[in-house]
Amino acid sequence: MSELTIALDIMGGDHGPPVILSAALKAIQKHPDTHFILCGQRTVIEPALLELSDQQRTQVTIEHCDEVVEMGEAPTAALRTKKFSSMRRIIELVQSGEADACVSAGNTGALLTLAFYILKTLPGIDRPALISAMPTAEHHKVFLLDLGANVNCTSEILFQYGVMGSVLAQQVAGIDTPRVALLNVGEEDIKGNAQVKYADQLFRNARGLNYIGYVEGDDIFADVADVVVTDGFTGNIALKSTEGLAKLVIKEVKRQSQVNVFTRFMARVALPLLKTIYNRVNPDQYNGASLIGLRGIVIKSHGNASADAFYYAIRQAREEARMRVPEKIRSKIETVLLEQL
Amino acid sequence: MSELTIALDIMGGDHGPPVILSAALKAIQKHPDTHFILCGQRTVIEPALLELSDQQRTQVTIEHCDEVVEMGEAPTAALRTKKFSSMRRIIELVQSGEADACVSAGNTGALLTLAFYILKTLPGIDRPALISAMPTAEHHKVFLLDLGANVNCTSEILFQYGVMGSVLAQQVAGIDTPRVALLNVGEEDIKGNAQVKYADQLFRNARGLNYIGYVEGDDIFADVADVVVTDGFTGNIALKSTEGLAKLVIKEVKRQSQVNVFTRFMARVALPLLKTIYNRVNPDQYNGASLIGLRGIVIKSHGNASADAFYYAIRQAREEARMRVPEKIRSKIETVLLEQL
Repeated sequence: MSELTIALDIMGGDHGPPVILSAALKAIQKHPDTHFILCGQRTVIEPALLELSDQQRTQVTIEHCDEVVEMGEAPTAALRTKKFSSMRRIIELVQSGEADACVSAGNTGALLTLAFYILKTLPGIDRPALISAMPTAEHHKVFLLDLGANVNCTSEILFQYGVMGSVLAQQVAGIDTPRVALLNVGEEDIKGNAQVKYADQLFRNARGLNYIGYVEGDDIFADVADVVVTDGFTGNIALKSTEGLAKLVIKEVKRQSQVNVFTRFMARVALPLLKTIYNRVNPDQYNGASLIGLRGIVIKSHGNASADAFYYAIRQAREEARMRVPEKIRSKIETVLLEQL
Repeated sequence: MSELTIALDIMGGDHGPPVILSAALKAIQKHPDTHFILCGQRTVIEPALLELSDQQRTQVTIEHCDEVVEMGEAPTAALRTKKFSSMRRIIELVQSGEADACVSAGNTGALLTLAFYILKTLPGIDRPALISAMPTAEHHKVFLLDLGANVNCTSEILFQYGVMGSVLAQQVAGIDTPRVALLNVGEEDIKGNAQVKYADQLFRNARGLNYIGYVEGDDIFADVADVVVTDGFTGNIALKSTEGLAKLVIKEVKRQSQVNVFTRFMARVALPLLKTIYNRVNPDQYNGASLIGLRGIVIKSHGNASADAFYYAIRQAREEARMRVPEKIRSKIETVLLEQL
């Protein structure tokens, strides 16, 4: 008997079904206690399952879906015209209780819209957020939100994000009393825009949260906070610009290694070291942004995720289902809001 | 006869006058055609000048200033109560025409406030911006603005930033028709907040600018644009979060190098390679953010700048004065605004 059921959108992602199916097979083999509902075109899915044992095959259900949400498709079009897409189906399975969580590497905007429309937000939560863990010094991690679900955030929404992030850091990363911080352009009280300043007041007045005040951009990676809260515009830019710098450094290592025989030697010797470091800051290791604040668990994998990265997103879904994260957020937001009365 | 005159705030910065004076001495020696007005406490400045030749000493004027704007001081306090600060004096010297440009490593908020209040913005420019060059692939650079002068930007201000950035990229980096881009959370038209969407319209309707549309955070370093425009809140977070990641990578190299004798060997061999790469992405090489849009040239050096970094900021001031950047911005904004009529 399976403890948990996870629905996977087989059709999403830049690399198409083969990469997703490869991750799914790995998950099936590694987690015999978990049932997987694979949503997508049956003719694409079935051949991939041939390599499973009879026992493993019982862990899998195929839900044939005729339609596919394309990567560049407008979210509203995906919502209105594609009633039988694999992306919609995985969310419906969570909504009906047939699945405990779902994972997609497809069109982010469409996934956000479908999840928001079908699952709805938890009581006390105005908008869902995309949240993901990033590396920090000393092998710790920091949860950054919102990574792009809402480009316009009121102070109240920023406050709710802090509560949600705190619950995730506690339940998934096992941090007792997570340090929650607001991202700002300076540590002095005088800096920041109106939304951030008022959100700071809301945090200061709240009980039951370990709020530590403002942090700046470079503090994200400095292990000074466990949860860093910002609006979806800024959070997305922070995430992507650091990805951009990481890519530039790797490109430079490759370029330098070709300058002459000495740099080639240095690059060869340095490679294992750099690989260790890269693995620490590699987005693949931190793949699987959670869409939190909804009445159900939805994990968004990177569109260009490798099979390993998508597998990591499945593990993330499993972990949140095991810890019943939405129920914990619901209970925490109730407590915090009641304390304020 | 000196071609240019540059005023330096000797008292600003985290490391105090010794670092600034060391950079000033280097600049005096390297640029015999430039006159320097050193503003600060005479008793601090004079001993440092002993090592100059008689000829070099003629390149220098000391302006004794009794007051110092402290790093943590509120900008309005610096403006209202410190009428005789070294920071205020360098800006007054630019305003009166006695200096062609000025440089400070002091309190950013105070420098912005003093410069805005004393120099005023150019006609057609609502707010000044902080702009700096960052490294990109292929040894090119990209100008990013605003880095924190204004946390709330209207679409019109974002548009003016694009014009200003384009002039700086052309005059200082020698790029013929700089590619100007708007920073956004996605390349699709549907994404972004209201300010960004309307700014996109303003850019599309403008003639005389090489506007290429939206770019995302990771594109900053990808050499797809020469000028990337965003509001001061997002720009500051983008700059600082990439700085934070760079610091984390360096920390990891040091930590890994101590794991065992093999990693120590690898780190030692890798060091020259990493140093070359670090020099490429080192903020010191890109120190000297310009405060543009004002009727005069003001360069903000990093508060914790080394002598080399502060020297780079002085060179930046010299270059902008030589190219008469404010006049060029004034003329460009007039042309673009007239074209729109």
